[in-house]
Amino acid sequence: MSTERILEEAREQISKIIPEGVNISGIEYEGPLVVVYTKDMDTFASNNDIVKQLAQGLRRRVAIRPDPSMLADPEEVERRIREIIPDEAEITDIYFDDDIGEVMIEAISPGIVIGKHGSTLNEIKKEVGWAPKVVRAPPLPSKTVSDIRSYLRQISDDRKVFLKKVGRRLARQRLEGESWLRMTALGGFREVGRSATLLSTRESKVLIDCGIDPGKDGGTPYFNAPELMPLDTLDAVVITHAHMDHCALLPVLYKFGYDGPVYCTPPTRDLMSLMQLDGIKVSFGEGKKAPYESSHVREVVAHCIPLKYGETTDIAPDIRLTFQNAGHILGSAVCHFHVGDGMHNIAFTGDMKFERTWLFNATANRFPRLETLVIESTYGGHRDFQPSRADAVNTLNEICDRVLKRQGKILIPVFAVGRSQEVMLVLEELMRTGKLPSVPIYLDGMIWEATAIHTAYPEYLNSQLRTQIFQMGENPFLSPLFKRVETQDMRERICHDDEPCIVLSTSGMMNGGPVMEYLKSWADNSNNCLIFVGYQAEGTLGSRILKGQTDLQIPERGKMINIKMCMDIEVAEGFSGHSDRRQLMAYIASLDPKPNKIIIGHGDEHKCSDLASSIYKKFNIETRAPMNLETIRMR
Amino acid sequence: MSTERILEEAREQISKIIPEGVNISGIEYEGPLVVVYTKDMDTFASNNDIVKQLAQGLRRRVAIRPDPSMLADPEEVERRIREIIPDEAEITDIYFDDDIGEVMIEAISPGIVIGKHGSTLNEIKKEVGWAPKVVRAPPLPSKTVSDIRSYLRQISDDRKVFLKKVGRRLARQRLEGESWLRMTALGGFREVGRSATLLSTRESKVLIDCGIDPGKDGGTPYFNAPELMPLDTLDAVVITHAHMDHCALLPVLYKFGYDGPVYCTPPTRDLMSLMQLDGIKVSFGEGKKAPYESSHVREVVAHCIPLKYGETTDIAPDIRLTFQNAGHILGSAVCHFHVGDGMHNIAFTGDMKFERTWLFNATANRFPRLETLVIESTYGGHRDFQPSRADAVNTLNEICDRVLKRQGKILIPVFAVGRSQEVMLVLEELMRTGKLPSVPIYLDGMIWEATAIHTAYPEYLNSQLRTQIFQMGENPFLSPLFKRVETQDMRERICHDDEPCIVLSTSGMMNGGPVMEYLKSWADNSNNCLIFVGYQAEGTLGSRILKGQTDLQIPERGKMINIKMCMDIEVAEGFSGHSDRRQLMAYIASLDPKPNKIIIGHGDEHKCSDLASSIYKKFNIETRAPMNLETIRMR
Repeated sequence: MSTERILEEAREQISKIIPEGVNISGIEYEGPLVVVYTKDMDTFASNNDIVKQLAQGLRRRVAIRPDPSMLADPEEVERRIREIIPDEAEITDIYFDDDIGEVMIEAISPGIVIGKHGSTLNEIKKEVGWAPKVVRAPPLPSKTVSDIRSYLRQISDDRKVFLKKVGRRLARQRLEGESWLRMTALGGFREVGRSATLLSTRESKVLIDCGIDPGKDGGTPYFNAPELMPLDTLDAVVITHAHMDHCALLPVLYKFGYDGPVYCTPPTRDLMSLMQLDGIKVSFGEGKKAPYESSHVREVVAHCIPLKYGETTDIAPDIRLTFQNAGHILGSAVCHFHVGDGMHNIAFTGDMKFERTWLFNATANRFPRLETLVIESTYGGHRDFQPSRADAVNTLNEICDRVLKRQGKILIPVFAVGRSQEVMLVLEELMRTGKLPSVPIYLDGMIWEATAIHTAYPEYLNSQLRTQIFQMGENPFLSPLFKRVETQDMRERICHDDEPCIVLSTSGMMNGGPVMEYLKSWADNSNNCLIFVGYQAEGTLGSRILKGQTDLQIPERGKMINIKMCMDIEVAEGFSGHSDRRQLMAYIASLDPKPNKIIIGHGDEHKCSDLASSIYKKFNIETRAPMNLETIRMR
Repeated sequence: MSTERILEEAREQISKIIPEGVNISGIEYEGPLVVVYTKDMDTFASNNDIVKQLAQGLRRRVAIRPDPSMLADPEEVERRIREIIPDEAEITDIYFDDDIGEVMIEAISPGIVIGKHGSTLNEIKKEVGWAPKVVRAPPLPSKTVSDIRSYLRQISDDRKVFLKKVGRRLARQRLEGESWLRMTALGGFREVGRSATLLSTRESKVLIDCGIDPGKDGGTPYFNAPELMPLDTLDAVVITHAHMDHCALLPVLYKFGYDGPVYCTPPTRDLMSLMQLDGIKVSFGEGKKAPYESSHVREVVAHCIPLKYGETTDIAPDIRLTFQNAGHILGSAVCHFHVGDGMHNIAFTGDMKFERTWLFNATANRFPRLETLVIESTYGGHRDFQPSRADAVNTLNEICDRVLKRQGKILIPVFAVGRSQEVMLVLEELMRTGKLPSVPIYLDGMIWEATAIHTAYPEYLNSQLRTQIFQMGENPFLSPLFKRVETQDMRERICHDDEPCIVLSTSGMMNGGPVMEYLKSWADNSNNCLIFVGYQAEGTLGSRILKGQTDLQIPERGKMINIKMCMDIEVAEGFSGHSDRRQLMAYIASLDPKPNKIIIGHGDEHKCSDLASSIYKKFNIETRAPMNLETIRMR
């Protein structure tokens, strides 16, 4: 169906389905949605079948929105809401989602906002037209979340234009004749870093991830592969999760002129924005220039279409995307693509943890259909077995206890997102239960902010933690043990203070970031201890230290300085956000349905091929471990 | 080195190397050559070292040409040559190669043209400036060869501009940093037909072959693969040989705007021009429109840079090409690419015959270096053993004898090029030696012309045949048994004549061409016999008949008509221009050096994978049998 034809069809269907006399004031594309504007929201609200019938008839997602004329001015609405709702509700924020005509009311006591049997909400709805939604105020305010909200408010007109453009492009005329499905490895295959994969059919192109290589100095995916260019032939970029080796170079695409949509989960959008902006700072700190500017990070936000887990949406005329939980970090997603009206189904695990952790549920393993799976293999080697989480805690406990008792300082390099929060939860519990002496735990380099974003998206945490935070009122993240490092002064004080303490700091692979400051100050004292809790990619400083290198060269304001490494070096394995070999194999065994083909990436060369041959032997499923720049055809 | 820098360098080197006082009137690019123009040709002629030193210094092929002012007007030259040379020489043609300042004198008695100790030639050279070359007049005049010569004369100014452009593009600044080498299957992998492969490095793209699928109605390679486009990013097209499944769609590239060079051997250029023009006629005859016009075939000729076997030349800033004999048809070539100053060497066999045949030597199997081989597998299945050439002759003898004795007519569908000439040689010998009754052998559909082109390029035939033709004066192609079918009247007369006869006619797979006329007339009589001597690709009429289908639908002037197949159907195996399984394996065994990787194409799906796994098992060499649209990385 052509662009206009779909809208025409929608009009016809609506006229058949909805009761006579119900007002329809407009029909328009909005990204993957067909949006129906009406002045009779109640009719639709009371009859869910209408929307369902429309969606089935059009084979598209349909949304019903109040006619804009029904929506009172946001400032006026905010004033009225504050008047209507009792002060005891403690409203912390009110924000508007213009896209969908909702007003979000964030409060310490959501129950009071709602009122008896929803009475207060109903009153608001009647008065202002906007649909009021109530959310509990996150326990830690996040600057990132509120900045992004306010930025989206600010550009809401441009965004409407953008979403309409995306919708029309999605509805373009389908090509006739033979189609095909291919996957081109552009980065992150037979290596860890610079993840990027092009998924292409005869009529569409989707880029999955666009990361940097933390090991090589600013190593990029193969942007010079001719099949990627020109960028305006890309229908969509999909980001699996917010780690820099998966999203750092997304702003660069906008710098180079891409102006299409980015699909990711809401927490991924916020986290990656935080990480990308921090990337600029980190580069500056090293006397280098980031490959993009903050304006390009804003472009990413402006072009982001967030999708929740389980929400299926068209991202190209012949490709549908559904995210599911990957268990790796907050918002990390397995991306399932339904291609060509059932021609093929392919899922990318992204980075994945097939084990329930303190923070997340295990990777999703059920799909409506699945012919090809693309899976990571960070710990895919046949000897890559990791301790259980319980053993990991014991190891960390033992190391910390030993170091703190000798009055040493502990430095734990962590990714801001994922490992930090997990280690925080463990250390808090160990100190709370007296297994470790209570010393300050300093959080440096975005960890605090990343933690705040976690608390803003409780629905992405596992249910146990959610219960602990919200129903039992025991939010471990709020422990007074945690101290945020906010200034260079404070950082220097911690560096030179004599008291034992623990520092969690980015970057996780020690290729820049504030962790370098602590290393420089503490490296010469063997009382101090450096504890690795995460993967150290080939070529990073972390990897060199792990290999026993003691004469280190590290950058300081554009120059290289020499460091003699005398610190105790320990590894607390078992905190990884990646599945180990056993978990990867268990994941394949658990898949429902079983794919016909499994493609292995995101692992050192021998781990990719090792996992590939093991899967083939054990499950008799065809496997491939392509090199970067190779293309595999699925159909 | 940049474009201008190379010419500058050439000037400096020349000033160092050549004796003082020698006139250099210009230096310019001409395709892959650096050409030095001089008024002192003798100095260079008498000192070959100068050219060698220059070529080594510049790392390019260098040609020395007479300054154009030294070359007398061609008309005047021709007049003088005819005056100087005695009539007994029987000059058949005089033509000029402006590109290289040569005048070719074609004569029945070359010795007389040369004169005692070259006296006559020397006289000519002194008078006209052009370098005279003498060739023996081909025993059969070829319209194609003479048309192409005259067309090239006509466009010689445009061609100079074109060659200069190619040269400048070749000399463009090389990119810095990591490069790579990839091969993308665009057609002819896991199938026979529409051969096309893209060889690409970070800075260059070369398309190898551009054929049609004879089985599918006008099936084309995957021109919609984004890495191929836009066409002006292609540095070169290389054609392995003149069969339509390898070159039919080359004119379409020019129709779509490609204006770069095509590299092939001289006989391939002429044969493919013949085939492509015939393709237009065949389509017309079927009431269809060819996908290109004759003007596009002329474009091919105009953009063709012919290379002889063994002549190494730059075809991109980082790619050098050398053709070697493939043994399949006249001019068929194994294409060896030396990539990135020794980074990698990859050879494409094209279609190949690793056995000395009546016409050609066996496929070349020695290379200076070879890391990857791309090989055909038409008869690569583990049961694809073919009879020896001797057995093939006996079979053909027996079948023909039987049919002719019962007064039947024999129809042999053949490719115009290759099998026709082989079968002609065999039939001529059988009749000459009395093993078969002498009946007329009619040649229809370009076979005559294709044979004439064979005799124009004797250096591409095997030495035995060359000796037979030129030294023993026994040219089997000139036998009075062969009759050329030149008109529709004649064709109809043969169709309806009662006398037994043999018809060799195109197309070889019975997907169009005059062979259809004979089939329609003779199909109803079981006295008549259809003999297959070549490969019948899946989907062609030939393949359907071979499978025993008797109710045939065949096109006639845009409609389909029904034919009942009653003819005797025979197969005379062993005439194939393709290596059988044994020969393919023997070829791999004989390769010097051995490649690290072998990529299999040009065979039905199971033959590709069968050959791939057999080669791996026997030689322990990594093999791949990619699907079309897959990309394999070599470096």
